Amino acid sequence: MKFEIKREVLSEVLNNVSKLISSKSSIPILQGILLEVDEDELRLTASNNSETIQHSIPVDGDSVEVFKTGKVVLPKQIVELVKKAKKKVEFNLEGFTTKIKSGKSVFELNCLDAEEFPKLPEVNTTEPNLRLRGTQFSDLIKKTRYAASTSETRPILQGVLFEIQKDCIHLVCTDSHRLGQIKQTCENSSELRIVIPSKALDDVLKTFDLSKDVELFAKDQMILLRNGQTIYFSRLLEGNYPDTSRLIPNDFKSEVQVDRKEFLNSLERIKTLADAADNGKGGVIKMHVNGVLTISTHQAQTGKGRDEVQYSSLEGEDDFTISFSAKYMIDALKTVDCDEVVFKYQGDMRPFLLVPSEQKSYEELQLILPVRTT
Amino acid sequence: MKFEIKREVLSEVLNNVSKLISSKSSIPILQGILLEVDEDELRLTASNNSETIQHSIPVDGDSVEVFKTGKVVLPKQIVELVKKAKKKVEFNLEGFTTKIKSGKSVFELNCLDAEEFPKLPEVNTTEPNLRLRGTQFSDLIKKTRYAASTSETRPILQGVLFEIQKDCIHLVCTDSHRLGQIKQTCENSSELRIVIPSKALDDVLKTFDLSKDVELFAKDQMILLRNGQTIYFSRLLEGNYPDTSRLIPNDFKSEVQVDRKEFLNSLERIKTLADAADNGKGGVIKMHVNGVLTISTHQAQTGKGRDEVQYSSLEGEDDFTISFSAKYMIDALKTVDCDEVVFKYQGDMRPFLLVPSEQKSYEELQLILPVRTT
Repeated sequence: MKFEIKREVLSEVLNNVSKLISSKSSIPILQGILLEVDEDELRLTASNNSETIQHSIPVDGDSVEVFKTGKVVLPKQIVELVKKAKKKVEFNLEGFTTKIKSGKSVFELNCLDAEEFPKLPEVNTTEPNLRLRGTQFSDLIKKTRYAASTSETRPILQGVLFEIQKDCIHLVCTDSHRLGQIKQTCENSSELRIVIPSKALDDVLKTFDLSKDVELFAKDQMILLRNGQTIYFSRLLEGNYPDTSRLIPNDFKSEVQVDRKEFLNSLERIKTLADAADNGKGGVIKMHVNGVLTISTHQAQTGKGRDEVQYSSLEGEDDFTISFSAKYMIDALKTVDCDEVVFKYQGDMRPFLLVPSEQKSYEELQLILPVRTT
Repeated sequence: MKFEIKREVLSEVLNNVSKLISSKSSIPILQGILLEVDEDELRLTASNNSETIQHSIPVDGDSVEVFKTGKVVLPKQIVELVKKAKKKVEFNLEGFTTKIKSGKSVFELNCLDAEEFPKLPEVNTTEPNLRLRGTQFSDLIKKTRYAASTSETRPILQGVLFEIQKDCIHLVCTDSHRLGQIKQTCENSSELRIVIPSKALDDVLKTFDLSKDVELFAKDQMILLRNGQTIYFSRLLEGNYPDTSRLIPNDFKSEVQVDRKEFLNSLERIKTLADAADNGKGGVIKMHVNGVLTISTHQAQTGKGRDEVQYSSLEGEDDFTISFSAKYMIDALKTVDCDEVVFKYQGDMRPFLLVPSEQKSYEELQLILPVRTT
């Protein structure tokens, strides 16, 4: 293996794939980066055992020039080394030692055998199950993933359900206290029902170029996402995702429309009162609607607070009180892009909905369970 | 106590003084902020027991309007609360409850008795022991403080020695493996020899406005620093600071002048090879001077590396080798503002110096002990 490459080209890719490497990994080879050099492309692969990312660099004869093909696993120090290198970097593999020259500097890195790096699963990537614009893909995740459970008790709830039908995609995520759901029409997708771990979705958003399309392929208990020159593999969560359709109410006693930002600011103001012991959850907020929307809280240690938000319209019952977690309400409000949100109430101990005042290209809703305060 | 204040004025000060508050403090009152309201100024004070910061806001009738004087200790939630408040905030103390109104929001904070907040020591602030421009003050600290010890074994080495004479100030800091020293002429200073904890200096630089002068007053085992509307108290370190003057060599076998940035980049490149287990210390670097300056390292796990730096001039012996800690050399090079540095060598097992090629308004030097490699 011998090639020369422009520093910035390689550095960007190394930086990207290395995000998946954990220095705590107990498998030494997974602390390195697999480098494969062919006539027509360089491939860099990193894996944390449940997720794998691979990025290709086409050999164009300008930024990359290949003299001899080959493959090896580089130690993770390569990331910093290339970042600090001069304009051009030359790689030359001899045995398991890679000689790296840049300017007057010469490094000899101890490397590992490429054959020992876990093989990527073979997935047919001609027909994706789903194709979305990058921004669309990140929007779908943003509006659901926040509701994933962080508890180990029901692992399936740590993921986001992707239900893909012929002409529509349906995402649901719930930790059983709150739920985010989105439905969007799309073309040429093929039927699928999978649960993607929320951590994998976080990693994907960190590494993908959202100006490019995202294609999704699923096979057995694996998913492959393709984005430009990057492909990303993750295991899927196994088990039955609960049927959440019955949870979404249709009948409401009252619908209150309010300015999203103003409501959010009020809640964040009130949330500051929460004790440090509350871990930023912001405690319980009581909301009273009667001519105006009043939110209040009482924290034994710190004191109490109250704020008012004028609502822009109300339909139905105009005198009710409901209590909820400040954090849940703030998280849900943050997922909405609209200027105004509608709060849909069906009783003080029944789950309530938060929806944008105008549904755009997709249909979204956030559901929150109230808190019993007496 | 009753007053009204513009949010941004109060928020900036709260943000500044609260940097000293540790939520781990075992003394509940030190988790709060003392607010004192007089006819002509508001004073906000925070303390972590060994350091105290106080900021005054003059009552100008525009950004602050006082209706009734008084004092109270506010819980630290006040910082976030004011940050999220509307344009104007009204404070009204009744008993130990402070009512805070802003727009339509009303908060009632449980507060503590101002009488229980530790009293500030009385220091006569008419004649400072030393007065420096803010940037000058931060420069002096930057060039010495980095060499402070982090080990508990000799607490006195965790500070920076300030030795002030009639017309000159002398700063020294050493952890016994390396040393930073700076001498500067100054006017109207009064004699003093104190050791300021390095943590206090960090906190001071975080909170001070360096476009304003810094005045230093010392009394007993306390120091007071004044910077604009801010005053800052810290305990001093007790004990005898070692006499370091004998450590600084005067005779050298060789003096090599080299481009600072190029040398730094080379070292940082080589340092990337260090094992993760090294905690970013970068291991030991061997430097060989013979026509060119060659640095190299050999890390058992990762591999080896070598780089060359052309030097611009050399006086004396032109063939020698010395080994040192990569981190120590990098830290020292970073404190120098000059384009070129001079490496002063007096033998492979003797401490060496690093000085800027041109001494500006002050005389500075960095000393490093070599590492025995055989």
